[in-house]
Amino acid sequence: MHASAPPALTNSVDTALRLRARQVIPGGLWGHLNAANLPEGYPQFFARGEGCRVIDVDGREFVDFMCSWGPIVLGHHHPAVEDATRRQAALGDTLNGPAPVLVELAELMVELIPHADWCLFEKNGGDATTAAVTIARAGTGRKKLLVARGSYHGAVPWCTPSLAGVTAEDRAHILHYDYNDIASLEAAVDQAGGDLAGILVTAFRHDMARALEMPAPAFARRMRELCDAADAALILDDVRAGFRLHLGGSWETIGVAPDLAAYSKAIANGYPLGAITGRDRWREAATKIFTTGSFWCEAVPMAAALATITELKRIEGPAVMARMGQRLRDGLGRLAAKHGLAISQSGPPQMPLMLFADDTGFAKGSTFCSAALKAGAYFHPKHNMFLSCAHTEADIDRALDAADEGFAAVARMG
Amino acid sequence: MHASAPPALTNSVDTALRLRARQVIPGGLWGHLNAANLPEGYPQFFARGEGCRVIDVDGREFVDFMCSWGPIVLGHHHPAVEDATRRQAALGDTLNGPAPVLVELAELMVELIPHADWCLFEKNGGDATTAAVTIARAGTGRKKLLVARGSYHGAVPWCTPSLAGVTAEDRAHILHYDYNDIASLEAAVDQAGGDLAGILVTAFRHDMARALEMPAPAFARRMRELCDAADAALILDDVRAGFRLHLGGSWETIGVAPDLAAYSKAIANGYPLGAITGRDRWREAATKIFTTGSFWCEAVPMAAALATITELKRIEGPAVMARMGQRLRDGLGRLAAKHGLAISQSGPPQMPLMLFADDTGFAKGSTFCSAALKAGAYFHPKHNMFLSCAHTEADIDRALDAADEGFAAVARMG
Repeated sequence: MHASAPPALTNSVDTALRLRARQVIPGGLWGHLNAANLPEGYPQFFARGEGCRVIDVDGREFVDFMCSWGPIVLGHHHPAVEDATRRQAALGDTLNGPAPVLVELAELMVELIPHADWCLFEKNGGDATTAAVTIARAGTGRKKLLVARGSYHGAVPWCTPSLAGVTAEDRAHILHYDYNDIASLEAAVDQAGGDLAGILVTAFRHDMARALEMPAPAFARRMRELCDAADAALILDDVRAGFRLHLGGSWETIGVAPDLAAYSKAIANGYPLGAITGRDRWREAATKIFTTGSFWCEAVPMAAALATITELKRIEGPAVMARMGQRLRDGLGRLAAKHGLAISQSGPPQMPLMLFADDTGFAKGSTFCSAALKAGAYFHPKHNMFLSCAHTEADIDRALDAADEGFAAVARMG
Repeated sequence: MHASAPPALTNSVDTALRLRARQVIPGGLWGHLNAANLPEGYPQFFARGEGCRVIDVDGREFVDFMCSWGPIVLGHHHPAVEDATRRQAALGDTLNGPAPVLVELAELMVELIPHADWCLFEKNGGDATTAAVTIARAGTGRKKLLVARGSYHGAVPWCTPSLAGVTAEDRAHILHYDYNDIASLEAAVDQAGGDLAGILVTAFRHDMARALEMPAPAFARRMRELCDAADAALILDDVRAGFRLHLGGSWETIGVAPDLAAYSKAIANGYPLGAITGRDRWREAATKIFTTGSFWCEAVPMAAALATITELKRIEGPAVMARMGQRLRDGLGRLAAKHGLAISQSGPPQMPLMLFADDTGFAKGSTFCSAALKAGAYFHPKHNMFLSCAHTEADIDRALDAADEGFAAVARMG
């Protein structure tokens, strides 16, 4: 038994489930939700979600700042979303073709998102980024794709962070630039020569384990110019940030329109959906490629998206989340100062990250998170977090009380 | 207006939706559910599904033999599945980690499927085939993948049927053999030399627009031997056939065990889920690759899968579907003979295909399907169809009455 593990956990429901999982699932769990990557004390298995709270299988309740790693934008079990999905589910979900809600949702996307002349739907964020890249290649007849060094665009061979099972050819036409570095972007465009199909860029720099960075307007404008000059596609990967920063697409905040944009995560408040929007220049290419999935026409997630986006518009969701995120940020700043601890806070307030200064191996961040977790707040030490519209001032204040415990634990590290 | 189109349709709800869709969705719809690929009179948009019936947006009801292209295996709104999903949804769906149902479902898969020592879940069939190929490469450190000429394994660049937007490098390590042709398989293995990572094979040959072919046992056994000799992965793509032919995996019918198998479609009666099962030999490789998606730990589709598979076991679903499929096949044979028409019927009875002899451009098949559709049965002229456990003898007989109209229309073609 690990010295720092709370003894009670060895008899926990979570531990028992992890032991069973390890028998039948390689590594206990695949991918980003594997709690083995989290500090001491985090649960792997969840019993319930309600609003901005999650409840683990041992009955511990947390004010949640991961929002299921993005999808939960209105809070679990939001009544407007649940009503819409119940009504659609009573009719049908996966049918021989789409339900009318497909058209309503596509029309809403085109109305809401300035660059969007059309829309396609998928299931995963990686479906959307992969199809967007394929559209860029089909629409230009070219192959090279520029990607920022270290950016995450999905977990399929051309972009997954692990190279296990990936061949060199899967990435043969990927060239790199550095986010917010105009010179490196221009150099990568030069390198692509006459074969530039598109430039892929995340809404802001949200690579794990380093400070978040907003896009510099001059960098974004230069990217637009370079794409225009080459008739290449500027592809905005808005999978993680979409519907939290701006309902017209995250780069509306800096006034730069992409050619194609990929969405998923928050689009349907936790129901599985991805989307691509595009300009008319890319419509024919989007018609020519063959991309599909058995569940891509599912009507229930589309009904959820229609209700989610409508509600986000009505309540001005991005502003709501920005206010609560700012309250959290201000509170964390105050508390860190009270404990004499140096921190940095970065990213948009709706998707914040707090890092400790001089924190080798994230020891301080982990100690902070474990202690805050015990006190009832679910933070993350090195991945951007997420606010939802269900977070109230009282929730933020309760989470700050838990953060106070976290800072105290870090202060005790000496 | 097309001469053979029924005049009423121009004022139909379906037509109005198609016109709106064409404005905001490239080509009106992406992928395999695009009704533009279907004969005259097929609806694009659906209002409802109930049991084995689908109801289009104009209120026309059909006995359905596509089952949403596979997913609907117990019938729409099956009470056991709906109860299970309602209970799970009331707790939570997309959370910060999986719900306990993940472990229960993985344990059921490992118990049910003889070769399965472990299980992973995804969202699409293409997620499962892609991850299986990645596991094969990670587990062998080799690159070459053998694929049957013409087989469908998903709609991502390495395997999608259209080459628009696909680069040569996306398929650099794919080598081809012909299904059921041992000599061609051996030649492809020779071609791979020391670089063979795996052989991918569909449960039976179900390429579109040609007679279906069951796997020859000698062919399957030879594939097993070749993989054993090379320590390469035999990957069974059971996405389309899984849970219809045999609950232990479709090649249990011929007694050949794969190393890895990919499932989706029928696994959760229309809820979105994919899965990979594998032998222990491939467990470490499955742990090393990074594959994930925002909604892959969704609890509701897992609850649906648990209920679906449990019900399929209880009622011996594959046998139920085989009986009803055989009743359809026998009836179609009788009716074709009555009308003096030569047809061929192929595939397993749960996933049948009927083709007309000498049917250039599928003119007869299309005429048959359009006339049967008008009479209330939803068939497909060139893709394998699907039975569900909701089809009763009365449904089959009603569909055969509609088929009688279809054969009469073909007979009138002269």
